[in-house]
Amino acid sequence: MLVIHDKSAIRKLVASWQAQGQRVGLVPTMGALHAGHISLVRQSRESCDRTVVTIFVNPTQFGPSEDLALYPRALQADCAMLEDEGVDAVFAPPEGSMYAADHSTWVTVDGLTSGLCGASRPTHFRGVTTIVSKLFHIIPADEAFFGQKDYQQATVIRRMVRDLDLDLRVTVCPIVREPDGLAMSSRNRFLTAEQRQAALVLSRALGDVSQMVGEGATPDDCRKFLEHAIGSEPLAELDYAAIVDADTLGEIRDFSRPAVAALAVRFGATRLIDNILLPPSG
Amino acid sequence: MLVIHDKSAIRKLVASWQAQGQRVGLVPTMGALHAGHISLVRQSRESCDRTVVTIFVNPTQFGPSEDLALYPRALQADCAMLEDEGVDAVFAPPEGSMYAADHSTWVTVDGLTSGLCGASRPTHFRGVTTIVSKLFHIIPADEAFFGQKDYQQATVIRRMVRDLDLDLRVTVCPIVREPDGLAMSSRNRFLTAEQRQAALVLSRALGDVSQMVGEGATPDDCRKFLEHAIGSEPLAELDYAAIVDADTLGEIRDFSRPAVAALAVRFGATRLIDNILLPPSG
Repeated sequence: MLVIHDKSAIRKLVASWQAQGQRVGLVPTMGALHAGHISLVRQSRESCDRTVVTIFVNPTQFGPSEDLALYPRALQADCAMLEDEGVDAVFAPPEGSMYAADHSTWVTVDGLTSGLCGASRPTHFRGVTTIVSKLFHIIPADEAFFGQKDYQQATVIRRMVRDLDLDLRVTVCPIVREPDGLAMSSRNRFLTAEQRQAALVLSRALGDVSQMVGEGATPDDCRKFLEHAIGSEPLAELDYAAIVDADTLGEIRDFSRPAVAALAVRFGATRLIDNILLPPSG
Repeated sequence: MLVIHDKSAIRKLVASWQAQGQRVGLVPTMGALHAGHISLVRQSRESCDRTVVTIFVNPTQFGPSEDLALYPRALQADCAMLEDEGVDAVFAPPEGSMYAADHSTWVTVDGLTSGLCGASRPTHFRGVTTIVSKLFHIIPADEAFFGQKDYQQATVIRRMVRDLDLDLRVTVCPIVREPDGLAMSSRNRFLTAEQRQAALVLSRALGDVSQMVGEGATPDDCRKFLEHAIGSEPLAELDYAAIVDADTLGEIRDFSRPAVAALAVRFGATRLIDNILLPPSG
Protein backbone atom coordinates (compact mmCIF):
# COMPACT_ATOMS: atom_id res chain seq x y z
CA MET A 1 0.00 0.00 0.00
CA LEU A 2 1.35 3.41 -1.00
CA VAL A 3 1.05 6.31 1.45
CA ILE A 4 1.18 9.48 -0.62
CA HIS A 5 1.39 13.03 0.68
CA ASP A 6 1.74 14.89 -2.60
CA LYS A 7 -1.18 15.92 -4.81
CA SER A 8 0.54 15.42 -8.15
CA ALA A 9 1.87 12.00 -7.13
CA ILE A 10 -1.59 10.63 -6.24
CA ARG A 11 -3.03 12.23 -9.38
CA LYS A 12 -0.46 10.44 -11.55
CA LEU A 13 -1.05 7.12 -9.81
CA VAL A 14 -4.83 7.32 -10.26
CA ALA A 15 -4.41 8.39 -13.91
CA SER A 16 -2.14 5.40 -14.55
CA TRP A 17 -4.79 3.03 -13.17
CA GLN A 18 -7.58 4.64 -15.17
CA ALA A 19 -5.46 4.53 -18.33
CA GLN A 20 -5.46 0.74 -17.86
CA GLY A 21 -9.27 0.77 -17.66
CA GLN A 22 -9.38 0.19 -13.89
CA ARG A 23 -12.29 1.64 -11.88
CA VAL A 24 -11.11 3.69 -8.92
CA GLY A 25 -13.00 3.93 -5.63
CA LEU A 26 -12.46 6.80 -3.19
CA VAL A 27 -13.14 6.79 0.54
CA PRO A 28 -12.62 10.31 1.95
CA THR A 29 -12.02 10.28 5.73
CA MET A 30 -10.62 12.40 8.53
CA GLY A 31 -8.73 9.38 9.88
CA ALA A 32 -9.17 7.90 13.38
CA LEU A 33 -10.67 5.00 11.50
CA HIS A 34 -13.21 2.58 12.92
CA ALA A 35 -15.40 -0.23 11.62
CA GLY A 36 -17.69 2.29 9.91
CA HIS A 37 -14.87 3.51 7.69
CA ILE A 38 -13.73 -0.03 7.09
CA SER A 39 -17.20 -0.94 5.80
CA LEU A 40 -16.80 1.82 3.18
CA VAL A 41 -13.38 0.46 2.23
CA ARG A 42 -14.80 -3.03 1.82
CA GLN A 43 -17.65 -1.74 -0.32
CA SER A 44 -15.16 0.10 -2.51
CA ARG A 45 -12.94 -2.98 -2.78
CA GLU A 46 -15.99 -4.94 -3.92
CA SER A 47 -17.15 -2.40 -6.52
CA CYS A 48 -13.84 -1.04 -7.83
CA ASP A 49 -10.49 -2.30 -9.08
CA ARG A 50 -8.51 0.15 -6.97
CA THR A 51 -9.31 1.84 -3.68
CA VAL A 52 -7.86 5.12 -2.44
CA VAL A 53 -8.52 6.32 1.12
CA THR A 54 -7.87 9.97 1.93
CA ILE A 55 -6.98 10.98 5.47
CA PHE A 56 -7.18 14.70 6.16
CA VAL A 57 -8.56 16.48 9.21
CA ASN A 58 -10.17 19.33 7.28
CA PRO A 59 -9.94 22.55 9.30
CA THR A 60 -12.62 24.39 7.31
CA GLN A 61 -15.42 22.09 8.44
CA PHE A 62 -14.80 22.87 12.12
CA GLY A 63 -16.36 25.96 13.65
CA PRO A 64 -14.24 28.33 15.77
CA SER A 65 -15.49 26.77 19.02
CA GLU A 66 -15.33 23.17 17.80
CA ASP A 67 -12.90 20.32 18.40
CA LEU A 68 -10.38 20.70 15.54
CA ALA A 69 -7.35 20.65 17.85
CA LEU A 70 -8.73 17.72 19.84
CA TYR A 71 -9.92 15.69 16.87
CA PRO A 72 -8.07 12.36 17.07
CA ARG A 73 -5.11 11.83 14.70
CA ALA A 74 -3.75 8.31 14.30
CA LEU A 75 -2.13 8.09 10.86
CA GLN A 76 0.11 5.11 11.64
CA ALA A 77 -2.64 2.97 13.14
CA ASP A 78 -5.01 4.05 10.35
CA CYS A 79 -2.52 3.00 7.66
CA ALA A 80 -1.96 -0.36 9.34
CA MET A 81 -5.71 -1.03 9.28
CA LEU A 82 -6.00 0.04 5.65
CA GLU A 83 -3.06 -2.10 4.58
CA ASP A 84 -4.75 -5.11 6.19
CA GLU A 85 -7.87 -4.29 4.19
CA GLY A 86 -6.02 -4.35 0.88
CA VAL A 87 -6.29 -0.63 0.17
CA ASP A 88 -4.12 0.41 -2.79
CA ALA A 89 -3.17 3.91 -1.71
CA VAL A 90 -3.66 6.39 1.11
CA PHE A 91 -3.59 10.10 0.29
CA ALA A 92 -2.63 12.00 3.46
CA PRO A 93 -1.77 15.59 2.51
CA PRO A 94 0.09 17.75 5.04
CA GLU A 95 -2.14 20.27 6.76
CA GLY A 96 -0.69 23.29 4.98
CA SER A 97 -0.90 21.84 1.47
CA MET A 98 -4.64 21.87 1.05
CA TYR A 99 -5.43 25.55 1.63
CA ALA A 100 -3.31 28.46 0.41
CA ALA A 101 -2.98 31.34 2.86
CA ASP A 102 -5.24 33.37 0.58
CA HIS A 103 -7.67 30.53 -0.19
CA SER A 104 -10.95 32.16 -1.10
CA THR A 105 -13.04 29.68 -3.13
CA TRP A 106 -15.97 27.87 -1.57
CA VAL A 107 -18.45 25.33 -2.78
CA THR A 108 -21.79 25.77 -1.05
CA VAL A 109 -25.05 23.89 -1.22
CA ASP A 110 -27.97 26.10 -0.21
CA GLY A 111 -31.15 24.86 1.39
CA LEU A 112 -30.08 21.31 2.30
CA THR A 113 -27.43 22.73 4.62
CA SER A 114 -29.54 25.20 6.60
CA GLY A 115 -31.32 22.81 8.98
CA LEU A 116 -30.27 19.83 11.12
CA CYS A 117 -26.50 20.00 11.75
CA GLY A 118 -26.27 23.16 9.65
CA ALA A 119 -28.31 25.10 12.20
CA SER A 120 -25.72 24.71 14.97
CA ARG A 121 -22.72 24.39 12.62
CA PRO A 122 -23.30 27.19 10.09
CA THR A 123 -19.99 26.87 8.18
CA HIS A 124 -19.59 23.10 8.53
CA PHE A 125 -21.05 21.94 5.22
CA ARG A 126 -19.29 24.65 3.24
CA GLY A 127 -16.06 23.17 4.56
CA VAL A 128 -17.18 19.64 3.69
CA THR A 129 -18.31 20.40 0.14
CA THR A 130 -15.19 22.47 -0.54
CA ILE A 131 -12.73 19.80 0.64
CA VAL A 132 -14.68 16.99 -1.03
CA SER A 133 -14.74 18.80 -4.35
CA LYS A 134 -10.99 19.40 -4.02
CA LEU A 135 -10.44 15.69 -3.30
CA PHE A 136 -12.64 14.75 -6.27
CA HIS A 137 -10.46 16.96 -8.48
CA ILE A 138 -7.20 15.52 -7.14
CA ILE A 139 -8.51 11.95 -7.28
CA PRO A 140 -11.05 11.78 -10.12
CA ALA A 141 -12.52 8.52 -8.88
CA ASP A 142 -15.26 6.57 -10.58
CA GLU A 143 -17.12 6.03 -7.32
CA ALA A 144 -16.93 7.63 -3.87
CA PHE A 145 -18.18 6.09 -0.64
CA PHE A 146 -19.77 7.90 2.30
CA GLY A 147 -21.45 6.65 5.46
CA GLN A 148 -25.14 7.04 6.18
CA LYS A 149 -24.26 8.06 9.75
CA ASP A 150 -23.56 11.53 8.35
CA TYR A 151 -26.88 11.49 6.51
CA GLN A 152 -27.08 15.20 5.83
CA GLN A 153 -23.48 15.24 4.60
CA ALA A 154 -24.18 12.38 2.19
CA THR A 155 -27.31 14.13 0.90
CA VAL A 156 -25.43 17.41 0.44
CA ILE A 157 -22.60 15.68 -1.43
CA ARG A 158 -25.02 13.86 -3.73
CA ARG A 159 -26.62 17.21 -4.54
CA MET A 160 -23.25 18.85 -5.15
CA VAL A 161 -22.22 16.05 -7.50
CA ARG A 162 -25.46 16.39 -9.46
CA ASP A 163 -25.46 20.20 -9.57
CA LEU A 164 -21.80 20.57 -10.55
CA ASP A 165 -21.89 17.70 -13.09
CA LEU A 166 -19.12 15.83 -11.30
CA ASP A 167 -18.53 12.60 -13.15
CA LEU A 168 -18.65 10.06 -10.35
CA ARG A 169 -21.11 7.86 -8.54
CA VAL A 170 -21.80 8.54 -4.86
CA THR A 171 -22.55 5.44 -2.82
CA VAL A 172 -23.90 5.76 0.71
CA CYS A 173 -23.25 2.78 2.98
CA PRO A 174 -25.30 1.69 6.03
CA ILE A 175 -24.44 2.82 9.55
CA VAL A 176 -22.15 0.42 11.40
CA ARG A 177 -23.01 0.04 15.08
CA GLU A 178 -21.39 -1.30 18.23
CA PRO A 179 -23.02 -4.54 19.44
CA ASP A 180 -25.18 -2.50 21.85
CA GLY A 181 -26.40 -0.19 19.06
CA LEU A 182 -24.18 2.91 19.41
CA ALA A 183 -23.29 4.22 15.95
CA MET A 184 -19.55 4.03 15.28
CA SER A 185 -17.89 7.45 15.47
CA SER A 186 -14.36 8.75 15.88
CA ARG A 187 -15.77 10.91 18.65
CA ASN A 188 -17.06 7.97 20.75
CA ARG A 189 -13.61 7.70 22.35
CA PHE A 190 -14.24 11.02 24.11
CA LEU A 191 -17.20 9.62 26.06
CA THR A 192 -16.83 8.73 29.75
CA ALA A 193 -18.14 5.29 30.75
CA GLU A 194 -21.36 6.90 32.00
CA GLN A 195 -21.79 8.98 28.86
CA ARG A 196 -21.05 5.92 26.72
CA GLN A 197 -23.91 4.09 28.44
CA ALA A 198 -26.23 7.08 28.26
CA ALA A 199 -25.47 7.49 24.54
CA LEU A 200 -27.43 4.33 23.80
CA VAL A 201 -30.50 6.52 24.04
CA LEU A 202 -29.94 7.67 20.44
CA SER A 203 -30.12 4.32 18.69
CA ARG A 204 -32.82 3.07 21.06
CA ALA A 205 -35.07 6.08 20.46
CA LEU A 206 -34.55 5.90 16.69
CA GLY A 207 -35.43 2.19 16.71
CA ASP A 208 -38.59 2.97 18.66
CA VAL A 209 -39.56 5.67 16.17
CA SER A 210 -39.13 3.27 13.28
CA GLN A 211 -41.59 0.93 14.99
CA MET A 212 -44.00 3.80 15.77
CA VAL A 213 -44.18 4.71 12.08
CA GLY A 214 -45.24 1.15 11.30
CA GLU A 215 -47.98 1.57 13.89
CA GLY A 216 -49.35 4.76 12.32
CA ALA A 217 -47.60 7.55 14.23
CA THR A 218 -47.32 10.96 12.52
CA PRO A 219 -44.02 12.78 11.97
CA ASP A 220 -45.00 15.15 14.76
CA ASP A 221 -45.64 12.22 17.16
CA CYS A 222 -42.22 10.84 16.26
CA ARG A 223 -40.38 14.11 16.80
CA LYS A 224 -42.05 14.61 20.17
CA PHE A 225 -41.16 11.07 21.15
CA LEU A 226 -37.50 11.65 20.27
CA GLU A 227 -37.42 14.91 22.23
CA HIS A 228 -38.96 13.19 25.20
CA ALA A 229 -36.59 10.21 25.01
CA ILE A 230 -33.49 12.41 24.90
CA GLY A 231 -34.95 14.70 27.56
CA SER A 232 -35.34 11.72 29.90
CA GLU A 233 -31.60 10.99 29.82
CA PRO A 234 -29.91 13.29 32.38
CA LEU A 235 -26.46 13.20 30.69
CA ALA A 236 -27.88 14.04 27.25
CA GLU A 237 -28.47 17.52 25.88
CA LEU A 238 -30.55 17.66 22.72
CA ASP A 239 -29.21 19.63 19.74
CA TYR A 240 -32.02 18.55 17.42
CA ALA A 241 -34.54 15.80 16.82
CA ALA A 242 -35.92 15.88 13.31
CA ILE A 243 -38.20 13.89 11.02
CA VAL A 244 -37.53 15.10 7.49
CA ASP A 245 -37.92 14.15 3.84
CA ALA A 246 -35.08 11.80 2.89
CA ASP A 247 -34.18 13.78 -0.26
CA THR A 248 -34.99 17.42 0.45
CA LEU A 249 -34.39 17.28 4.25
CA GLY A 250 -37.50 19.46 4.49
CA GLU A 251 -40.27 19.12 7.07
CA ILE A 252 -42.95 16.55 6.35
CA ARG A 253 -46.57 16.07 7.43
CA ASP A 254 -46.91 12.37 6.67
CA PHE A 255 -44.87 9.33 5.71
CA SER A 256 -46.00 9.08 2.09
CA ARG A 257 -42.41 9.53 0.85
CA PRO A 258 -39.09 8.17 2.18
CA ALA A 259 -38.15 10.00 5.37
CA VAL A 260 -35.34 10.02 7.88
CA ALA A 261 -35.35 10.45 11.64
CA ALA A 262 -32.20 12.22 12.78
CA LEU A 263 -30.74 13.13 16.14
CA ALA A 264 -27.85 15.27 17.35
CA VAL A 265 -27.16 15.06 21.07
CA ARG A 266 -24.39 16.41 23.28
CA PHE A 267 -22.81 14.45 26.11
CA GLY A 268 -20.61 17.02 27.81
CA ALA A 269 -18.40 18.44 25.06
CA THR A 270 -18.99 15.48 22.76
CA ARG A 271 -21.67 15.83 20.09
CA LEU A 272 -23.04 12.62 18.60
CA ILE A 273 -25.35 12.14 15.63
CA ASP A 274 -27.40 9.19 14.49
CA ASN A 275 -30.32 8.56 12.14
CA ILE A 276 -32.62 5.94 10.71
CA LEU A 277 -34.33 5.72 7.35
CA LEU A 278 -38.12 5.51 7.45
CA PRO A 279 -39.60 3.93 4.30
CA PRO A 280 -42.97 5.23 3.07
CA SER A 281 -45.89 3.70 4.95
CA GLY A 282 -49.67 3.67 4.96
CA MET B 1 -17.04 19.54 -36.69
CA LEU B 2 -19.46 17.90 -34.28
CA VAL B 3 -22.18 20.00 -32.65
CA ILE B 4 -23.15 18.23 -29.44
CA HIS B 5 -26.02 19.10 -27.14
CA ASP B 6 -25.78 16.23 -24.68
CA LYS B 7 -23.44 16.18 -21.65
CA SER B 8 -22.64 12.49 -21.73
CA ALA B 9 -21.94 12.55 -25.49
CA ILE B 10 -19.36 15.35 -25.22
CA ARG B 11 -17.87 13.66 -22.15
CA LYS B 12 -17.39 10.41 -24.09
CA LEU B 13 -15.88 12.20 -27.06
CA VAL B 14 -13.35 14.07 -24.91
CA ALA B 15 -12.49 10.89 -23.00
CA SER B 16 -11.86 9.06 -26.28
CA TRP B 17 -9.41 11.77 -27.37
CA GLN B 18 -7.62 11.81 -24.03
CA ALA B 19 -7.39 8.01 -24.05
CA GLN B 20 -5.35 8.44 -27.24
CA GLY B 21 -3.04 10.86 -25.45
CA GLN B 22 -4.43 13.97 -27.15
CA ARG B 23 -4.42 17.29 -25.28
CA VAL B 24 -7.82 18.94 -25.23
CA GLY B 25 -8.35 22.71 -25.26
CA LEU B 26 -11.58 24.30 -24.07
CA VAL B 27 -12.94 27.72 -25.04
CA PRO B 28 -16.06 28.50 -22.96
CA THR B 29 -18.26 31.17 -24.59
CA MET B 30 -21.77 32.56 -24.54
CA GLY B 31 -21.80 32.56 -28.33
CA ALA B 32 -22.34 35.66 -30.51
CA LEU B 33 -18.75 35.09 -31.48
CA HIS B 34 -16.37 37.77 -32.68
CA ALA B 35 -12.66 38.06 -33.42
CA GLY B 36 -11.86 38.01 -29.68
CA HIS B 37 -13.33 34.53 -29.31
CA ILE B 38 -11.66 33.42 -32.52
CA SER B 39 -8.27 34.44 -31.10
CA LEU B 40 -8.91 32.07 -28.18
CA VAL B 41 -9.83 29.28 -30.59
CA ARG B 42 -6.64 29.86 -32.56
CA GLN B 43 -4.55 29.82 -29.39
CA SER B 44 -6.20 26.55 -28.38
CA ARG B 45 -5.64 25.05 -31.84
CA GLU B 46 -1.96 25.98 -31.53
CA SER B 47 -1.47 24.54 -28.01
CA CYS B 48 -3.77 21.50 -28.08
CA ASP B 49 -4.56 18.53 -30.28
CA ARG B 50 -8.32 19.01 -30.02
CA THR B 51 -10.40 22.11 -29.42
CA VAL B 52 -13.89 22.20 -27.92
CA VAL B 53 -15.90 25.44 -27.86
CA THR B 54 -18.89 25.66 -25.55
CA ILE B 55 -21.77 27.97 -26.38
CA PHE B 56 -24.20 28.59 -23.54
CA VAL B 57 -25.84 31.84 -22.48
CA ASN B 58 -25.57 31.21 -18.76
CA PRO B 59 -28.62 32.65 -16.99
CA THR B 60 -27.04 32.62 -13.51
CA GLN B 61 -24.44 35.22 -14.39
CA PHE B 62 -27.07 37.79 -15.35
CA GLY B 63 -28.66 39.91 -12.64
CA PRO B 64 -32.45 40.33 -12.51
CA SER B 65 -32.30 43.71 -14.28
CA GLU B 66 -29.65 42.67 -16.80
CA ASP B 67 -29.82 41.75 -20.50
CA LEU B 68 -30.26 37.94 -20.41
CA ALA B 69 -33.28 38.00 -22.75
CA LEU B 70 -31.61 40.48 -25.11
CA TYR B 71 -28.19 38.81 -25.13
CA PRO B 72 -27.49 37.91 -28.78
CA ARG B 73 -27.93 34.26 -29.82
CA ALA B 74 -26.50 33.17 -33.16
CA LEU B 75 -25.77 29.44 -32.94
CA GLN B 76 -25.80 28.77 -36.68
CA ALA B 77 -23.48 31.65 -37.58
CA ASP B 78 -21.25 30.80 -34.59
CA CYS B 79 -20.92 27.18 -35.72
CA ALA B 80 -20.09 28.22 -39.27
CA MET B 81 -17.25 30.43 -37.95
CA LEU B 82 -15.96 27.66 -35.70
CA GLU B 83 -16.05 25.09 -38.46
CA ASP B 84 -13.95 27.41 -40.63
CA GLU B 85 -11.47 27.65 -37.76
CA GLY B 86 -11.02 23.89 -37.56
CA VAL B 87 -12.72 23.43 -34.19
CA ASP B 88 -13.30 19.75 -33.39
CA ALA B 89 -16.53 20.01 -31.41
CA VAL B 90 -19.05 22.55 -30.16
CA PHE B 91 -20.92 21.79 -26.95
CA ALA B 92 -24.19 23.75 -26.97
CA PRO B 93 -26.42 22.42 -24.19
CA PRO B 94 -30.12 23.32 -24.25
CA GLU B 95 -31.04 26.00 -21.72
CA GLY B 96 -32.89 23.66 -19.37
CA SER B 97 -30.22 20.98 -19.23
CA MET B 98 -27.61 22.87 -17.22
CA TYR B 99 -29.59 23.74 -14.10
CA ALA B 100 -32.08 21.47 -12.35
CA ALA B 101 -35.20 23.21 -11.06
CA ASP B 102 -33.86 22.69 -7.52
CA HIS B 103 -30.24 23.56 -8.37
CA SER B 104 -28.66 24.77 -5.15
CA THR B 105 -24.87 24.41 -5.43
CA TRP B 106 -22.68 27.44 -6.01
CA VAL B 107 -18.98 27.97 -6.43
CA THR B 108 -17.95 31.34 -5.05
CA VAL B 109 -14.65 33.17 -4.91
CA ASP B 110 -14.58 35.69 -2.09
CA GLY B 111 -12.57 38.90 -2.09
CA LEU B 112 -11.60 39.03 -5.76
CA THR B 113 -15.26 39.29 -6.72
CA SER B 114 -16.34 42.10 -4.40
CA GLY B 115 -14.90 45.10 -6.28
CA LEU B 116 -14.85 46.24 -9.92
CA CYS B 117 -17.66 44.49 -11.84
CA GLY B 118 -18.69 42.62 -8.68
CA ALA B 119 -19.77 45.88 -7.02
CA SER B 120 -22.53 46.58 -9.55
CA ARG B 121 -23.14 42.90 -10.45
CA PRO B 122 -23.20 41.16 -7.05
CA THR B 123 -24.21 37.66 -8.24
CA HIS B 124 -22.41 37.74 -11.59
CA PHE B 125 -19.18 35.98 -10.65
CA ARG B 126 -20.96 33.31 -8.65
CA GLY B 127 -22.79 32.47 -11.86
CA VAL B 128 -19.55 32.49 -13.85
CA THR B 129 -17.56 30.28 -11.48
CA THR B 130 -20.46 27.86 -11.09
CA ILE B 131 -21.01 27.38 -14.83
CA VAL B 132 -17.28 27.24 -15.56
CA SER B 133 -16.70 24.57 -12.93
CA LYS B 134 -19.63 22.60 -14.39
CA LEU B 135 -18.13 22.90 -17.87
CA PHE B 136 -14.72 21.83 -16.53
CA HIS B 137 -16.38 18.73 -15.04
CA ILE B 138 -18.25 17.89 -18.25
CA ILE B 139 -15.20 18.60 -20.44
CA PRO B 140 -12.10 17.84 -18.35
CA ALA B 141 -9.81 19.75 -20.70
CA ASP B 142 -6.07 20.05 -20.33
CA GLU B 143 -6.14 23.78 -20.99
CA ALA B 144 -8.87 26.41 -20.99
CA PHE B 145 -8.73 29.77 -22.74
CA PHE B 146 -10.20 33.06 -21.54
CA GLY B 147 -9.90 36.62 -22.82
CA GLN B 148 -8.12 39.38 -20.95
CA LYS B 149 -11.02 41.71 -21.81
CA ASP B 150 -12.86 40.12 -18.89
CA TYR B 151 -9.82 40.62 -16.66
CA GLN B 152 -11.59 40.15 -13.35
CA GLN B 153 -13.32 37.02 -14.64
CA ALA B 154 -10.00 35.53 -15.77
CA THR B 155 -8.42 36.33 -12.39
CA VAL B 156 -11.34 34.81 -10.51
CA ILE B 157 -11.24 31.65 -12.63
CA ARG B 158 -7.50 31.28 -12.12
CA ARG B 159 -8.07 31.52 -8.37
CA MET B 160 -10.90 28.99 -8.47
CA VAL B 161 -8.75 26.53 -10.40
CA ARG B 162 -5.95 26.89 -7.88
CA ASP B 163 -8.16 26.75 -4.79
CA LEU B 164 -10.25 23.77 -5.94
CA ASP B 165 -7.25 21.84 -7.31
CA LEU B 166 -8.77 21.65 -10.77
CA ASP B 167 -6.33 19.85 -13.02
CA LEU B 168 -6.09 22.20 -15.97
CA ARG B 169 -4.08 25.16 -17.17
CA VAL B 170 -5.83 28.51 -17.55
CA THR B 171 -4.49 30.64 -20.40
CA VAL B 172 -5.52 34.28 -20.70
CA CYS B 173 -5.23 35.75 -24.21
CA PRO B 174 -4.77 39.43 -25.13
CA ILE B 175 -7.67 41.74 -25.87
CA VAL B 176 -8.63 41.89 -29.55
CA ARG B 177 -9.61 45.37 -30.71
CA GLU B 178 -11.36 46.92 -33.67
CA PRO B 179 -8.97 48.91 -35.91
CA ASP B 180 -9.97 52.09 -34.04
CA GLY B 181 -9.21 50.58 -30.63
CA LEU B 182 -12.64 49.49 -29.34
CA ALA B 183 -12.33 46.17 -27.51
CA MET B 184 -14.30 43.43 -29.26
CA SER B 185 -17.49 42.52 -27.38
CA SER B 186 -20.74 40.74 -28.19
CA ARG B 187 -22.47 43.79 -26.74
CA ASN B 188 -20.90 46.28 -29.21
CA ARG B 189 -23.72 45.51 -31.65
CA PHE B 190 -26.14 47.27 -29.30
CA LEU B 191 -24.36 50.63 -29.66
CA THR B 192 -25.84 53.38 -31.85
CA ALA B 193 -23.44 54.99 -34.31
CA GLU B 194 -22.92 57.90 -31.89
CA GLN B 195 -22.36 55.60 -28.91
CA ARG B 196 -19.98 53.47 -30.99
CA GLN B 197 -17.90 56.57 -31.67
CA ALA B 198 -18.09 57.77 -28.08
CA ALA B 199 -17.02 54.33 -26.81
CA LEU B 200 -13.53 54.94 -28.16
CA VAL B 201 -12.99 56.95 -24.98
CA LEU B 202 -12.30 53.70 -23.07
CA SER B 203 -9.34 52.43 -25.06
CA ARG B 204 -8.00 55.94 -25.58
CA ALA B 205 -8.08 56.78 -21.88
CA LEU B 206 -6.47 53.44 -20.96
CA GLY B 207 -3.73 54.01 -23.52
CA ASP B 208 -3.08 57.45 -22.04
CA VAL B 209 -2.90 55.99 -18.54
CA SER B 210 -0.34 53.44 -19.67
CA GLN B 211 1.81 56.31 -20.93
CA MET B 212 1.29 58.34 -17.73
CA VAL B 213 2.63 55.46 -15.64
CA GLY B 214 5.81 55.48 -17.70
CA GLU B 215 6.07 59.19 -16.94
CA GLY B 216 5.79 58.71 -13.18
CA ALA B 217 2.08 59.18 -12.45
CA THR B 218 0.70 57.61 -9.25
CA PRO B 219 -2.25 55.18 -9.19
CA ASP B 220 -4.36 57.99 -7.80
CA ASP B 221 -3.36 60.32 -10.65
CA CYS B 222 -4.31 57.59 -13.12
CA ARG B 223 -7.69 56.88 -11.56
CA LYS B 224 -8.55 60.59 -11.52
CA PHE B 225 -7.48 60.88 -15.15
CA LEU B 226 -9.75 57.99 -16.15
CA GLU B 227 -12.68 59.47 -14.25
CA HIS B 228 -12.11 62.81 -15.92
CA ALA B 229 -11.75 61.26 -19.39
CA ILE B 230 -15.01 59.32 -19.09
CA GLY B 231 -16.71 62.30 -17.46
CA SER B 232 -15.81 64.42 -20.48
CA GLU B 233 -17.75 62.16 -22.85
CA PRO B 234 -21.43 63.19 -22.74
CA LEU B 235 -22.77 59.79 -23.89
CA ALA B 236 -20.70 57.88 -21.33
CA GLU B 237 -21.76 57.07 -17.78
CA LEU B 238 -18.97 55.77 -15.56
CA ASP B 239 -19.57 52.54 -13.60
CA TYR B 240 -16.01 52.37 -12.29
CA ALA B 241 -12.46 53.42 -13.07
CA ALA B 242 -9.92 51.40 -11.10
CA ILE B 243 -6.18 50.94 -10.81
CA VAL B 244 -5.62 47.68 -8.95
CA ASP B 245 -3.05 45.00 -8.24
CA ALA B 246 -3.01 42.58 -11.18
CA ASP B 247 -3.24 39.48 -8.94
CA THR B 248 -5.24 40.50 -5.86
CA LEU B 249 -7.37 43.19 -7.59
CA GLY B 250 -6.79 45.21 -4.41
CA GLU B 251 -6.06 48.93 -4.24
CA ILE B 252 -2.46 49.98 -4.74
CA ARG B 253 -0.36 53.00 -3.75
CA ASP B 254 2.42 52.64 -6.28
CA PHE B 255 3.38 50.70 -9.38
CA SER B 256 6.00 48.45 -7.77
CA ARG B 257 4.02 45.34 -8.72
CA PRO B 258 2.07 44.43 -11.89
CA ALA B 259 -1.16 46.41 -11.98
CA VAL B 260 -4.18 46.76 -14.20
CA ALA B 261 -6.24 49.79 -15.16
CA ALA B 262 -9.87 48.81 -15.66
CA LEU B 263 -12.98 50.65 -16.81
CA ALA B 264 -16.68 49.88 -16.93
CA VAL B 265 -18.80 52.45 -18.71
CA ARG B 266 -22.44 52.57 -19.77
CA PHE B 267 -23.64 53.93 -23.08
CA GLY B 268 -27.40 53.97 -22.67
CA ALA B 269 -28.36 50.42 -21.64
CA THR B 270 -25.10 48.95 -22.93
CA ARG B 271 -22.31 48.40 -20.44
CA LEU B 272 -18.80 48.05 -21.83
CA ILE B 273 -15.59 47.05 -20.06
CA ASP B 274 -11.96 47.38 -21.03
CA ASN B 275 -8.59 47.23 -19.30
CA ILE B 276 -4.86 47.49 -19.78
CA LEU B 277 -2.00 45.80 -17.97
CA LEU B 278 0.50 48.14 -16.33
CA PRO B 279 3.89 46.49 -15.80
CA PRO B 280 5.88 47.48 -12.68
CA SER B 281 7.76 50.74 -13.13
CA GLY B 282 10.19 52.98 -11.34
